[in-house]
Amino acid sequence: MGIVAPPPSALFRLPNIVARAFSTTMSPPSKAIVYDEQGSPDAVCKVRELPPVPIKDNDVCVRMLAAPINPSDINRIEGVYPVRPPVPAIGGYEGVGEVHSVGPAVKGLGPGDWVIPSPPSSGTWQTYVVKEQSVWHRIDKSTPMEYAATITVNPLTALRMLEDFVDLKSGDAVVQNGATSIVGQCIVQLARVRGLHSINIIRDRAGSNEVKQKLKELGADEVFTESQLDVKNVKSLLADIPEPALGFNCVGGNAASLVLKFLKHGGTMVTYGGMSKKPITVSTSSFIFKDLSLRGFWLQKWMTSEKGKECRNMIDYLLSLTRSGDLKYEYDLFISVFLITISISS
Amino acid sequence: MGIVAPPPSALFRLPNIVARAFSTTMSPPSKAIVYDEQGSPDAVCKVRELPPVPIKDNDVCVRMLAAPINPSDINRIEGVYPVRPPVPAIGGYEGVGEVHSVGPAVKGLGPGDWVIPSPPSSGTWQTYVVKEQSVWHRIDKSTPMEYAATITVNPLTALRMLEDFVDLKSGDAVVQNGATSIVGQCIVQLARVRGLHSINIIRDRAGSNEVKQKLKELGADEVFTESQLDVKNVKSLLADIPEPALGFNCVGGNAASLVLKFLKHGGTMVTYGGMSKKPITVSTSSFIFKDLSLRGFWLQKWMTSEKGKECRNMIDYLLSLTRSGDLKYEYDLFISVFLITISISS
Repeated sequence: MGIVAPPPSALFRLPNIVARAFSTTMSPPSKAIVYDEQGSPDAVCKVRELPPVPIKDNDVCVRMLAAPINPSDINRIEGVYPVRPPVPAIGGYEGVGEVHSVGPAVKGLGPGDWVIPSPPSSGTWQTYVVKEQSVWHRIDKSTPMEYAATITVNPLTALRMLEDFVDLKSGDAVVQNGATSIVGQCIVQLARVRGLHSINIIRDRAGSNEVKQKLKELGADEVFTESQLDVKNVKSLLADIPEPALGFNCVGGNAASLVLKFLKHGGTMVTYGGMSKKPITVSTSSFIFKDLSLRGFWLQKWMTSEKGKECRNMIDYLLSLTRSGDLKYEYDLFISVFLITISISS
Repeated sequence: MGIVAPPPSALFRLPNIVARAFSTTMSPPSKAIVYDEQGSPDAVCKVRELPPVPIKDNDVCVRMLAAPINPSDINRIEGVYPVRPPVPAIGGYEGVGEVHSVGPAVKGLGPGDWVIPSPPSSGTWQTYVVKEQSVWHRIDKSTPMEYAATITVNPLTALRMLEDFVDLKSGDAVVQNGATSIVGQCIVQLARVRGLHSINIIRDRAGSNEVKQKLKELGADEVFTESQLDVKNVKSLLADIPEPALGFNCVGGNAASLVLKFLKHGGTMVTYGGMSKKPITVSTSSFIFKDLSLRGFWLQKWMTSEKGKECRNMIDYLLSLTRSGDLKYEYDLFISVFLITISISS
């Protein structure tokens, strides 16, 4: 099965295998996307039938409904991710499923409930996943499935980056490149919800006017292509928007330099991706005289921090925004962004 | 008078003009290095006789004993410093002097006391300086004059960079490039006093073995030339020294990358100069997966911070180290470093 060229949806809609009463203490057999060694996903990934596994006292057996292909999933398979799962491994790191059956000691979760692994947990690319109850977080079933399946890796990254680096107040501004990425779209919308202005940088390419329009409909205050910012003082392009104290970079190269140019004195740029595969280049005076700080964000690391323990409350908040329509990402865009951002872990 | 090509000592030893009782409320006439417009110091700086000025109630008239030429002094004259003094201006920003006479309301300072402007204050390149008592900080007269004149701009930068960015404990390590600069030498020695290891990077040039030896005599644990670090894993060169959580960069380019390579996960690099005139280039993964932070330090800005109010206690501490022999910098090196570091403000 080819993962590098994903299906039209970057979400697997997993086959709805009817649960059979195979055994009261065994899961149904499962179909999984497995790799026995790290390498090109095309070459190493196989669809494999896995035999039933025992459902222990505290286990929950979940029938997966949907799971995304995130770039980091590809990188894990390739073996280029800093955390390398022991092989053989099942792909996938987030997703949503329906509880199929539970072990006798499980309380508060029952068949039919929707759950996500939270923190995300490896092996979501299979039809049935059996893991301890503590892995699973029950969510509101009225949440659109696509959002439930994808709420953690990208939207939570956007939320934490907005909250954890600079103390922003309503009326403040943020600046970002790669604004069409899922994280970028989430930043636009979460900023709007927080009363923050967003300044957005996109690539020069055909259709950029349509992209600008879409981002503005999501709540973007300003959207510039990189070439529009080829001016001496980018800040002169901002009318009533204050200089941003916080910026986000998922591109590198010139697009990162543009974020730095917008930042106010003492501002912070957080890097979470490197789509262009180019490094970030910074002048000495940016550090000394402009007092800029450059940081990075990695959700998987954050999950192990003290704040990571509160991730489920944050997930519930984000899911509520998807239900109210305050947080959305377009389906087509979603896919293209996956392809684009495959390099973010490089 | 040529400032770009400083005299063998980079300290002006100012002419010892005998104080005459010109007037009880007037200073003696003063010789000063003045510039009427920004530009090349060779072209715009003149030695000028300044007439006596009134010594008001709270004023202290100080006969300057010595004042250094810091690279930032040159940059101020050139007009390339972020803070541009209004012209005409007198050069110099730090130095040491002896109290010549005081206004009638001055308490606790009298003729013969040694003082430094603290925070540093412009106009130290003159024989008599009249400023309010609040400008002057009395110091121990047993301090060697050269250290008293230069204790703020470089040694205080080293002290604050060691203290203000990462919470270090005895046994921890720091890494720096440009280790032969005055700040670099101070870092080596202040680290040793604090029980910290220092890893030092110097340029490849003739005499590097002697430079290594000198830095080790100051307390450096390890000294490498850049070419010695052209290996896959620089950390393998460290025997019993822990990976450093804090690094200092005053060079940029490859030398900055080498500092980053030594840093441990989550480490911080502080930039305070850019001798090579090359920018700092950082990979995306350094931010995301290695969680590095890049910051900057500028003493002049720090002086205006809350902590800056305590600078006199810090100066007293540093001066005590010069008197005990725990902090020193070699005279010849001092000069060459001034010339080298002229680019730090670029």
